Amino acid sequence: MTDSNPDRPAAHEPFRRLLLTGAAGNLGKQLRGALAAWADVVRVTDIAPLGEVAAHEEASVVDLADAAKVHALLEGVDAVIHLGGISVEAPFEDLLEANIRGLYNLYSAAQKQGVKRIIYASSNHAVGFHPVTSVVDVDAPLRPDSLYGVTKCFGESLSRYYFDRFGLETVCLRIGSSFEQPKNPRMLVTYLSYRDFIELVRCSLLTNRVGHAIVYGVSNNRVSWVDNTKAAFLGFRPQDSSAQFEHLFPAGAPDTNFDDPTQLFQGGPFVLAGPMEPKR
Amino acid sequence: MTDSNPDRPAAHEPFRRLLLTGAAGNLGKQLRGALAAWADVVRVTDIAPLGEVAAHEEASVVDLADAAKVHALLEGVDAVIHLGGISVEAPFEDLLEANIRGLYNLYSAAQKQGVKRIIYASSNHAVGFHPVTSVVDVDAPLRPDSLYGVTKCFGESLSRYYFDRFGLETVCLRIGSSFEQPKNPRMLVTYLSYRDFIELVRCSLLTNRVGHAIVYGVSNNRVSWVDNTKAAFLGFRPQDSSAQFEHLFPAGAPDTNFDDPTQLFQGGPFVLAGPMEPKR
Amino acid sequence: MTDSNPDRPAAHEPFRRLLLTGAAGNLGKQLRGALAAWADVVRVTDIAPLGEVAAHEEASVVDLADAAKVHALLEGVDAVIHLGGISVEAPFEDLLEANIRGLYNLYSAAQKQGVKRIIYASSNHAVGFHPVTSVVDVDAPLRPDSLYGVTKCFGESLSRYYFDRFGLETVCLRIGSSFEQPKNPRMLVTYLSYRDFIELVRCSLLTNRVGHAIVYGVSNNRVSWVDNTKAAFLGFRPQDSSAQFEHLFPAGAPDTNFDDPTQLFQGGPFVLAGPMEPKR
Amino acid sequence: MTDSNPDRPAAHEPFRRLLLTGAAGNLGKQLRGALAAWADVVRVTDIAPLGEVAAHEEASVVDLADAAKVHALLEGVDAVIHLGGISVEAPFEDLLEANIRGLYNLYSAAQKQGVKRIIYASSNHAVGFHPVTSVVDVDAPLRPDSLYGVTKCFGESLSRYYFDRFGLETVCLRIGSSFEQPKNPRMLVTYLSYRDFIELVRCSLLTNRVGHAIVYGVSNNRVSWVDNTKAAFLGFRPQDSSAQFEHLFPAGAPDTNFDDPTQLFQGGPFVLAGPMEPKR
Amino acid sequence: MTDSNPDRPAAHEPFRRLLLTGAAGNLGKQLRGALAAWADVVRVTDIAPLGEVAAHEEASVVDLADAAKVHALLEGVDAVIHLGGISVEAPFEDLLEANIRGLYNLYSAAQKQGVKRIIYASSNHAVGFHPVTSVVDVDAPLRPDSLYGVTKCFGESLSRYYFDRFGLETVCLRIGSSFEQPKNPRMLVTYLSYRDFIELVRCSLLTNRVGHAIVYGVSNNRVSWVDNTKAAFLGFRPQDSSAQFEHLFPAGAPDTNFDDPTQLFQGGPFVLAGPMEPKR
Amino acid sequence: MTDSNPDRPAAHEPFRRLLLTGAAGNLGKQLRGALAAWADVVRVTDIAPLGEVAAHEEASVVDLADAAKVHALLEGVDAVIHLGGISVEAPFEDLLEANIRGLYNLYSAAQKQGVKRIIYASSNHAVGFHPVTSVVDVDAPLRPDSLYGVTKCFGESLSRYYFDRFGLETVCLRIGSSFEQPKNPRMLVTYLSYRDFIELVRCSLLTNRVGHAIVYGVSNNRVSWVDNTKAAFLGFRPQDSSAQFEHLFPAGAPDTNFDDPTQLFQGGPFVLAGPMEPKR
Repeated sequence: MTDSNPDRPAAHEPFRRLLLTGAAGNLGKQLRGALAAWADVVRVTDIAPLGEVAAHEEASVVDLADAAKVHALLEGVDAVIHLGGISVEAPFEDLLEANIRGLYNLYSAAQKQGVKRIIYASSNHAVGFHPVTSVVDVDAPLRPDSLYGVTKCFGESLSRYYFDRFGLETVCLRIGSSFEQPKNPRMLVTYLSYRDFIELVRCSLLTNRVGHAIVYGVSNNRVSWVDNTKAAFLGFRPQDSSAQFEHLFPAGAPDTNFDDPTQLFQGGPFVLAGPMEPKR
Repeated sequence: MTDSNPDRPAAHEPFRRLLLTGAAGNLGKQLRGALAAWADVVRVTDIAPLGEVAAHEEASVVDLADAAKVHALLEGVDAVIHLGGISVEAPFEDLLEANIRGLYNLYSAAQKQGVKRIIYASSNHAVGFHPVTSVVDVDAPLRPDSLYGVTKCFGESLSRYYFDRFGLETVCLRIGSSFEQPKNPRMLVTYLSYRDFIELVRCSLLTNRVGHAIVYGVSNNRVSWVDNTKAAFLGFRPQDSSAQFEHLFPAGAPDTNFDDPTQLFQGGPFVLAGPMEPKR
Repeated sequence: MTDSNPDRPAAHEPFRRLLLTGAAGNLGKQLRGALAAWADVVRVTDIAPLGEVAAHEEASVVDLADAAKVHALLEGVDAVIHLGGISVEAPFEDLLEANIRGLYNLYSAAQKQGVKRIIYASSNHAVGFHPVTSVVDVDAPLRPDSLYGVTKCFGESLSRYYFDRFGLETVCLRIGSSFEQPKNPRMLVTYLSYRDFIELVRCSLLTNRVGHAIVYGVSNNRVSWVDNTKAAFLGFRPQDSSAQFEHLFPAGAPDTNFDDPTQLFQGGPFVLAGPMEPKR
Repeated sequence: MTDSNPDRPAAHEPFRRLLLTGAAGNLGKQLRGALAAWADVVRVTDIAPLGEVAAHEEASVVDLADAAKVHALLEGVDAVIHLGGISVEAPFEDLLEANIRGLYNLYSAAQKQGVKRIIYASSNHAVGFHPVTSVVDVDAPLRPDSLYGVTKCFGESLSRYYFDRFGLETVCLRIGSSFEQPKNPRMLVTYLSYRDFIELVRCSLLTNRVGHAIVYGVSNNRVSWVDNTKAAFLGFRPQDSSAQFEHLFPAGAPDTNFDDPTQLFQGGPFVLAGPMEPKR
Repeated sequence: MTDSNPDRPAAHEPFRRLLLTGAAGNLGKQLRGALAAWADVVRVTDIAPLGEVAAHEEASVVDLADAAKVHALLEGVDAVIHLGGISVEAPFEDLLEANIRGLYNLYSAAQKQGVKRIIYASSNHAVGFHPVTSVVDVDAPLRPDSLYGVTKCFGESLSRYYFDRFGLETVCLRIGSSFEQPKNPRMLVTYLSYRDFIELVRCSLLTNRVGHAIVYGVSNNRVSWVDNTKAAFLGFRPQDSSAQFEHLFPAGAPDTNFDDPTQLFQGGPFVLAGPMEPKR
Repeated sequence: MTDSNPDRPAAHEPFRRLLLTGAAGNLGKQLRGALAAWADVVRVTDIAPLGEVAAHEEASVVDLADAAKVHALLEGVDAVIHLGGISVEAPFEDLLEANIRGLYNLYSAAQKQGVKRIIYASSNHAVGFHPVTSVVDVDAPLRPDSLYGVTKCFGESLSRYYFDRFGLETVCLRIGSSFEQPKNPRMLVTYLSYRDFIELVRCSLLTNRVGHAIVYGVSNNRVSWVDNTKAAFLGFRPQDSSAQFEHLFPAGAPDTNFDDPTQLFQGGPFVLAGPMEPKR
C-alpha cells in the first residue's frame, strides 16, 4: 500500500491503518482484537457506541449514509473490513440508507482516498433462493432471498465496478451463520466459527492479489451447500466444523410440509421474511 | 391475467390495461402507438409531459420515487413495460432515486396490485465491462460499466427476487442502442432498430410463460457481442440489421491506442463516464 | 453396409434393404413413400394392417414383443427406421411390452443380424419436465414427463449401450409434434413439418458416421425450446416453420393459472397424463 | 412423514416404519441391523428367505414383480431402502421382471401409499462405459456398461419422473464395490466399506430435503473415478479407504492389452458381460 | 497503427502496408488482389517465385527460416497475413524449419518492428482428432491430427504468448478446405469458398480489436463440425455453401469399415498421413 | 509391456527397464534412487555427466537433438520419465533444439521402439499467463508465459498426437517449484516437495491406464492456483505442504505496483523473462 509520508517510521505490521466498520456488531467485536496483529492502527467505527478504545485504535461513531463523514473516515486508510450496514431483512427504506447509499459512500470515499482493498461482508442470502438440494460455487447466478439479499447483490455489483474501473480490489465474503454455535439445524450447514471467520479475513487481507473475489464463509461442516474451489487462491482452509454441535439438533424424519419454502431454499427463514413494511 | 370484475365485457385485446413508464422518452414514444394493438387501455406515465393523449390512453405524470403515487399508478394494471428512470450515466444520488428507489416502488406496488408481468428495460451496460473480443450469453457474469450499469444490475436482482418470492414475472431487456440509426461504429454492433425493439416487447408480453428472463435487445447485425440462444423461448427473431449503415462508418485500420478502455470493452464510452459528481 | 451375397448386382440406391417399423402410423405413412428413394427394398412392418404394398416393399405384420419374429424381421436389413411402439401415455404394462421389451427385441436382433444403424423415434417427452422458460440442448439432463417419456429414456440408454458395446449406431430423434399443422399453441413451438421430418430421417440415414446421436425434431419455428447446435454434424436444416400457422392461435394475455404444470413444462399435457391405470 | 394414526404414541426414532428390500442380500444384511437405530419398525423383504426376524422387524418374502403384493408391502411405510432386484448382469428377461417391472411396482405403490422417500440402489454400472482415464461427476451423461446398467438408468429416469410429477424424493446411490475388502485391483478404486455404505444410507434418509439426488457410493480411496462435489448437500463424508488393501494387489507394469475394454472402462468386466442369453 | 513518418501523406486505405506471406500459394493468389482494397502498399513474399508484381505491390522471395531476412521483411509493415509455411503433412525436419522456426522469426520480427496484428493461417488439423460426430467450438481442446497439425498448435500457442506478453494481436484462422470446389465428400463439410475466405481475412483485419482470436474458416455448409458462436465479434458471416456441390458426391450408404480412422475423425486422411520420414 | 526376449527371467520389479532423461538435473537426482524400486534396470541419460553409476543402472550421455542416438537410447525401454531439455526461459534457438527437436526425437524413437508410456515433465509455465486470482483445472486453456512455456505447450500437443495416433500414453506433469524449500513467496503456492514429486511419478508410472493425462505437480499447499479434480484417476495425493515454510516469507501488505505482471500472473517472473536474445 502506498504511503504519502516517507518520513514515517516503517510499519511494524503489514498495514499502517485498517478501518473496521460495524465494529460494535457481533462479528465486529470478534474481529476487533484480531486486527491488532495486522495493523499499527485500527480505526473502528459503527453507528452504535464502540465501548472501550484500545491504544492502537481510533474510534468514531459514524452513520455511513453521511457522505462527508465517510470521506473523512477513509483518510489515511490502507484497507477496509466492511461489516457495517444492516445484516438482516429490514424495510427497504432502511436498507437503502444503510446498505446502498452507505456502501456507495464507502466505495466513493475509498477510491478517492486511494484505499487499495475492501473486505466486504456480503452474505449467503445473495444466493439464498438456490435450493438446499444444490451446491453453489462462487460463479453461481445471484438468487437473493430477501430485500436484504438484493442489497448484498448490489454490493457485489458495485464493488465489481470499482475493481474494473479503478482497480480497487474487493473480497466479497458470503458469510453464513457466524455465532458461538449453531442455533438451529440449518446453521449446522451454514456455520462459520469465529476462528474460521477471523482466518478468512486474514486471508482476504494478506493475499497479495485478490482482484474482485467471491468466497463463501463457512466452516468445514459435514453438510455443505457451497463450493469454494474457484476461490482457492485465497488460501482459506477452515479448521472448524459444526459436527461437534450435531447432537444439539438430532435428525428427525424429514418434515412433512413439502411446500415450505423455508425448508426448500438455502436462505431458510429469510425467503419469507420480506419485504417488510416500513416502521412508522 | 385475473379480472376482479367478471361482469365486465370481454377484452378485445390480449390485455385490459398495460402501463408504460418512460412514455415520453425516445423508446417510449416508439412503443406508445404499438401498445394499442395489445391492450384495451394503455396507461402512459413519465416524469415529463406526455403530449397528446389518445382515446385508449390514460396519462399521468408521476415521479416513480413517490411510493404512494406509484401504488395508485399500478391499480388495475395487467402488465407493465418499464422504460422509466435514468438511462445514461448520472450522479449516484439521481440514479438512486430514479433507478433504485423508483424501481422498488414499482415492484412493491406491482406485487400488491396483483400485476403479473413486468418488461424491464435493463441495459447492455449491466455487462459492459466484458471485452469486445468476447461474446456474452444471457448467463454471463454481471460486469457493470458505470454506476448506471450498477443500477441495472440492481434491477435484475430485485426482479429476480420478486419472481422467486411471489411469481411476478419479468423480462429484462438488455437493450443496446435503439435509435433511428447508429451514431458511431460501436452502435453498428449494438444497434436495435425500432421495429425490432417493438417486436421484442411484443414477444416479452405475449409469450405465455417467461419466468425471470434476460434477453439482449440487438438487431441481427453482422458483428455481435451477444448470444440469445438460451432466450429462444421468447421467440424474438430480429428482422433488421445495421449492415445498411456500415457505409456511414467505413472501417479504418484498428486505432492505435491499445490501452483505451472505451475501445476494449463492450460498454464503450460508458466505461469512463462515471462516477459523476452530483450537480449542485 | 455389409452384404452377405457378393454376387448380387450392385444396389441402385444407397441401401439394399431398409426396415420401417410403425409403418401404419401417422409418421410411418409419411415416410413410407420417401424411403423408396434410398433403398432397393423397403421392408415395412406394423402391428396394424399395412395397406397396399408397393413393388419395392416387403410387408409383414409383427408384434415387436415377439422376439423370434423380430429376429426374422431383421434378416438382411441394412438399417432400421424404428417408429413402432406406443407414442402416447399408456398403462405401464402396455408400454413395457411395446417400448421396452419390443425395443430390446429390436436391438438384440439387429445386433445379431449385423444391422449397422437404427434411426430411433425418441421424443421430446424424454425431456418434457424442463420448463418452457428454458432451452435444452442435446446434452440436457433427462426429465421424462410421463411413463411414456421414461420408456423413451430407456430407449436412449439401451441404444447408447449397443453403440458403446457393439458399435451399432443410433440416431435418437426427439420428435416434437409432427402433423399436418399445429393443433394448439404449444405445437407452434414443437411443430415438425412432414417435409422436415423426412429430411431429418434422410440426414440420419445418409450421414457417413453418426455414432450415438441425439437430435431434436422441430422445424425452424419462431419460438424454440431446443438447441441442435451440437448435432450440426447431421446436417439437418429445417425448411419449414410454424409461423404460417400462428394466426390460428392468436396470442391472448398469458393465462392466469400460474401453477398449472401443463403451462409450465415443455411436455405440456403429458406432464399430467400419467401414470395411467391398466385397462381391464 | 405423514401418520395415518394420530393416536399412536410418538415415535422414538426418526421413522415409524422403514422398508428394506433385498434384505437377504449382501448389503441388505449389513444394513438390517443399522436400520433399528432410525425406525421403530423395520419391514424387511426379499425374494429369498430372511432368516431370524428381530423384535422390531416385520418380514415378508415378496416377488417385486407381483404388483398386488408390492402394494400391500408399502402400506404404512415412511421411507424405503430399495436394494432388491438383480445386481449383476443377467438375461434381459430376468432384468425386465426384477429391475423394471419390479421397480415400477415399487414406485407406483409407494406413490399411492404416500411414501415420501426412496433410497434407490443404483450402480456405477449406469456410467460404466466412461473411460478409467476420466472422472465423472453426478451430472455425467449416462453410459451403461451392461443390460443391468441399462436397467439402473431406467430406475434413475423413473424415479426422476416420480419426483417431478409427485414430489416423491429419491436418492440414487451409485454404489461401487461394497464387500469386506476389494477382490481385485479395480475394486481398490470402487471400494465402499460397509461402514461407509451405512453412513451413506443414513445421510440419504435423514437429510431434510433430497429432491432427486444422485451420489456415488465409494469410500475415500486413493484413486478415484468419481466426484461427489455436487452432492455435498447430503453430507456424506466417507471414513474409510481402500489404501489398507493396496498391498493385496501390488502394482505391476500396466498390462499390455491396450484394446481390452475391461481395462479401458470404469465398468471393468461388466462391459463384456452382456447381453446374456436367457437360461432355459 | 503507428506511423514512424508523420510527414507522409495520409493513407487512402485503412492500412499503409500489409505483408502477405505465402503469396505464391493457392490462397495467397486469391488474396493478393483483394488486399489492394485495404492497403496502399501490399508487400508480398513467398519462398517460390511471385509472378508479376502490381504497382501497389512490393515483392521479395524470402525463406522464413532466415531470421535476418524476416526482420527486414517486417519493416514498415502495419499488419501481416501469414499464409506461408507448409500446409500439408511433411517430414518433421521440414515442418520444423517452415512452421516453427519460420513462425518464431515472423513473430519475433513483428514484435520488434511494432507490427500490431497478424492474421495467422492455422488449420482445422489443429483439432482434427475430434470425431466427426462432434461439433467443436473455438475453445475445444487441441487435438492435432498430424505433425503438421502439431505445428499449427505451436503457432496458436506462440501467438497467444505474443499477445499476452506484448499485446500483439492475432486471429488464428482454422481454415478448412479452400478450393474452387470440394474434391471429396469430406470437403463438403470443410469447404470454404474463396469469396468467404477473403471476407474472413477482411473481418480479421478490420475489426477494431481482436485480441487473440480463433475462428473456423468454413462456409455456411449444410453439415458442420464447427461452431463459431464465440467468435461472433469478428463479424464473419459466410455467404456461400457447399450445397451446390453435393450432387458431385451423391450419398451412398455409410461405408462398412467402422474402424477406419479417416472416416471417424474430422481430420480425414490427415490422421493417417504422418509422421513422415524425411526425404533424403 | 512387451518383452522382446521371452527367455529372460521374469522381472522382479514392475518394469524391466525405465529410461530417465535429465538424470543429472535437480529433479533427476531426486528420482534416480527411487526408480530402483520400480524397475530391474534404470537407464539414465543426460547431456551432462551422470556421476557414479549404480549396479542396476545403465548410463549414457546423449544430446536429445541427435536423432540416431535417441533411437538407440530407447531400445528395450518399457517406459520413459522425461525430465530432459531446458527447464527455464532461454533463447529460442536453444529451446528449439532441446525442447522441440529433442522431444520429437524422443517420441519418434519411443513409438518405433514400442515404448508404451512417457512421463513428460511439462510445467505450470504452460498456463502461467492465467491470473493469480484464478484457479486452473487440467482443461484450462493454454496460456504460456514464456518461450519456454510455449515449448511445453508444444510437448503437450505432440504427446497428444502420439496418443491419438499410436496409443502411446503420456502423463504431462505440470510441475510447480520442486526444491528443498520455497525460495520466495510465490513458491509457497507452487511448491512440490521431493517426496510428493516422487509419488507423482510413481502414480504416473503404475496406474494401469493413463491415456493422455495432464496433472499439476504441487503439494497440498494452503494457497492453490490449480485443481486436479479431473486427474483423480491417477491417485496422486500429496502428503506435504508449504505451510511449514510460510514463516520464511511473512505476509506484508499487498505490494503497491498494481500493474506488475510478475505479481498478476501465475507464472511470476517468467512472464517478463522472455524472449531472450541468443547468446553469441
